[in-house]
Amino acid sequence: MHALVLAHGTLQFTPDHPQPIPGDGEALIRVLRAGICNTDLELVQGYQNFAGVPGHEFVGVVEQCQIQQWLGQRVAGEINIACGACRSCRAGMPTHCRQRCVLGIHARDGAFASYLTLPIENLHPVPEGISDSEAVFVEPLAACFEMLEQVQIRPTAQILVLGDGKMGLLAGQVLRLTGASVTLQGKHPEKLALAERLGLQTRLGTPAQPEREFDFVVECTGSAAGLELARQLVRPRGTIILKSTVAGQSTLNLAPFVVDELTVVGSRCGPFAPALEALKDRRVIVAPLLSATYPLQGGVEAFAHAARPGTLKVQLAMTRQS
Amino acid sequence: MHALVLAHGTLQFTPDHPQPIPGDGEALIRVLRAGICNTDLELVQGYQNFAGVPGHEFVGVVEQCQIQQWLGQRVAGEINIACGACRSCRAGMPTHCRQRCVLGIHARDGAFASYLTLPIENLHPVPEGISDSEAVFVEPLAACFEMLEQVQIRPTAQILVLGDGKMGLLAGQVLRLTGASVTLQGKHPEKLALAERLGLQTRLGTPAQPEREFDFVVECTGSAAGLELARQLVRPRGTIILKSTVAGQSTLNLAPFVVDELTVVGSRCGPFAPALEALKDRRVIVAPLLSATYPLQGGVEAFAHAARPGTLKVQLAMTRQS
Repeated sequence: MHALVLAHGTLQFTPDHPQPIPGDGEALIRVLRAGICNTDLELVQGYQNFAGVPGHEFVGVVEQCQIQQWLGQRVAGEINIACGACRSCRAGMPTHCRQRCVLGIHARDGAFASYLTLPIENLHPVPEGISDSEAVFVEPLAACFEMLEQVQIRPTAQILVLGDGKMGLLAGQVLRLTGASVTLQGKHPEKLALAERLGLQTRLGTPAQPEREFDFVVECTGSAAGLELARQLVRPRGTIILKSTVAGQSTLNLAPFVVDELTVVGSRCGPFAPALEALKDRRVIVAPLLSATYPLQGGVEAFAHAARPGTLKVQLAMTRQS
Repeated sequence: MHALVLAHGTLQFTPDHPQPIPGDGEALIRVLRAGICNTDLELVQGYQNFAGVPGHEFVGVVEQCQIQQWLGQRVAGEINIACGACRSCRAGMPTHCRQRCVLGIHARDGAFASYLTLPIENLHPVPEGISDSEAVFVEPLAACFEMLEQVQIRPTAQILVLGDGKMGLLAGQVLRLTGASVTLQGKHPEKLALAERLGLQTRLGTPAQPEREFDFVVECTGSAAGLELARQLVRPRGTIILKSTVAGQSTLNLAPFVVDELTVVGSRCGPFAPALEALKDRRVIVAPLLSATYPLQGGVEAFAHAARPGTLKVQLAMTRQS
């Protein structure tokens, strides 16, 4: 099959990558579309020492499966493949399975290919009203809903989202569903204009003398300096949510976190069901976040496009032949 | 009056320091005893750029006050002097007042002196059954009760306290009151033996291959490396509580905090009432934590003693003349 393969730090289109064979309880899924995430860009830079087929945001069609009713079903899929037996799995936290593989990120070939395999229990049917290109956003959107699983956000809360990239634009919309006041702070006027069309308040850059007024600051900058900036903007006893995964070291003075009694919450993968419902009901709008679509054969070019400043989501669309 | 005065990075006993004059709504308190905290040692190293009389753990007697019933009362006192008008004060968080002075730490002379002043609203009567030397522990003990104000600790929780110093020994006892399993990890066999007498489980050093099993890890090491060690010991989705204030920079890889969805909670000053009750009812035992007592005149020597490895609490006892 066709695939983008990462080996020795180089990503290449490969026309004859072996097609994966579904294991017991797994489905073979023909990939329709897949999205390039910042994590994918970091994998190419060496994060996780990943080798193989990257890609974990996708929509596809089930082509082989032991359970008849899934055949032909259009699906999105949760990306953590759990053992079901370890301490974390037994505690009801399969996304934290200690032996987990992660689709296109850790020990499992991913979605930038004609086919992928996933356990049936990871699959979610995609309702008709959601287009393929929208469905690819389910995974990152689910990751934003994870915040609402982790912290209680009151409708009177004041929230600042740091970063006007694709994650900030998704996170801001999800947080806004709570009724809380959400301000998105970014550096790109055109993205802030989009944020305003999506119902968010915005501000360009950090004010010269910021008042520390926000109950929550959500770090979506993808920068090592993001946490320190968030600290300067959150109120005493406020909460910082770390959404972006930054590879590498950050240097921090921890004393202010103690003195101001801040809470910092790391947040990763989240629940697919509310994300699918929000897309179906148009409570979250993702279509304007799509910057470009490439064929799988143009994957290397698509990665370069995704890495260019100012780009939002770049997707790969597979054809039957690819 | 007699006082220990910190100026230009040097601590000196001063026999003729001006006695503080209580402002409106304040009490003049004759200090009976005061305790040396790690924060005091850091102040001498330059933390907070503090100049004046340090000391914030004390017991004393009210000698002047507009409200008659406080006169002659033995008291402990909360150390944050709040404005009552700022955003934090109005939100019910006077310990986070944005214009606050802090007794012996920031813009306010403290307890290593014959006299100090504090707002009457900061004072708490000390019940008879609590000795002077025990009463000095109320402030750091209250800071440990702050954890129970901040996070919900279930009686089935598994808690690890990192650090067998005075804060670890207090924090461990307070956490144990919840019914949770508390293990204190330290480097000093004699302190771990004390912890066991105080009802805690203990372990000497980090196991070679630690299982990440703890729901909570409480950082009481006072070391910049403490947070990273805590991260390696807490379970996925667990909580790290930062109790010690470490001056200076820490270098951290933040990605594991996101991947493991950890929560980090900074924790500072706490409620005096439950601390006083726990001392009165002997639910927390502090007497064995007293390493030495010096007269105020021997304050410089007392600081040197407090800084020596293996020392627990060093107190200063004032005489009428001092």
